[in-house]
Amino acid sequence: MRQPVPLDRCTRLLNHGPTVLVSAEHEGRRNVMAAAWSMPLDFLPPKVAVVLDKQTFTRGLVEASGRFALAVPPVALAGLTQRVGNISGRDVDKFAASDALARAEPGPATGAPLVEGCVAWLECRRLPEPHVEQAYDLFLGEVVAAWADDRVFRDGRWHFADADPALRTLHHIAGGHFLAIGDEVDYAPDAGPR
Amino acid sequence: MRQPVPLDRCTRLLNHGPTVLVSAEHEGRRNVMAAAWSMPLDFLPPKVAVVLDKQTFTRGLVEASGRFALAVPPVALAGLTQRVGNISGRDVDKFAASDALARAEPGPATGAPLVEGCVAWLECRRLPEPHVEQAYDLFLGEVVAAWADDRVFRDGRWHFADADPALRTLHHIAGGHFLAIGDEVDYAPDAGPR
Repeated sequence: MRQPVPLDRCTRLLNHGPTVLVSAEHEGRRNVMAAAWSMPLDFLPPKVAVVLDKQTFTRGLVEASGRFALAVPPVALAGLTQRVGNISGRDVDKFAASDALARAEPGPATGAPLVEGCVAWLECRRLPEPHVEQAYDLFLGEVVAAWADDRVFRDGRWHFADADPALRTLHHIAGGHFLAIGDEVDYAPDAGPR
Repeated sequence: MRQPVPLDRCTRLLNHGPTVLVSAEHEGRRNVMAAAWSMPLDFLPPKVAVVLDKQTFTRGLVEASGRFALAVPPVALAGLTQRVGNISGRDVDKFAASDALARAEPGPATGAPLVEGCVAWLECRRLPEPHVEQAYDLFLGEVVAAWADDRVFRDGRWHFADADPALRTLHHIAGGHFLAIGDEVDYAPDAGPR
């Protein structure tokens, strides 16, 4: 079940470095793309950074609307994540071509489509920084609403150990190859090499 | 064994979102800190982004020297990663307090200490962007040299499946809890939800 995540905990949805889906909507046009390069930027108000190439259709929608969403796809959506990363919304309406995407609902805070089957969603307001956007394709945003699937994220943290492995987050290596996130590391903070 | 990684492949060392150690040196003073928030920014020339809080001693060294290194610690260094993230180089000489850090050698391109026992290292030249550094604690760099431990990264990609699990990368959740990276996702790119 999708449950709200308090804003002071929402950077934890991205802390461990998952690949994300970036979505945006402007005047009835919408798109979703995959991005391996995103990270949290601040705790409160929570901020994020994401790299959006100039060639992407999504970037134009983010620039025009000033809003976007990041969603965290699990292993079950590896194929979908790969496909939306390999075709452009300029060429095809990805939502018409996909039953899963067709069911995406507009985020209440941004209108950006929230992809069903993901395990976390962060709706963001673009923080316009024209210089780094142009020079580095780097977009910054403030998170204004966040949710997670409570089968794997609840009480402010991830719980993958006792959940379906298909709900583990995806971490892109290269060329459509992904690693799933693994198990919690059991260690004594004071042990190990000094 | 530490082996050079071609610059056109080096973003793959960070692509899957591991927690990193950030190190820097200036005029004989050096430090290392942990950072969960870093990501690649461009392929070639390769660039990276990392968040360095204003309170960190490392940030001052990066600003003064214009250089830094990112290293990717494995599970075996979870304790060390946690410890260097919880104490400040202003208060203690972390290198004197740690045999593992005492063995760190200066990177040939930057002088920044390269922490032994990590599985990847990226030496970087700071790309000065004073506005985003001040406003967001966001530092950008161009990677000028990279290496990886060939037990887990060779031929331009990660190979965790057949290696010691203690060499898997660490992904910080919160409060000193880490997840290890898991296994490669076996899927058909055209399968899954449409």
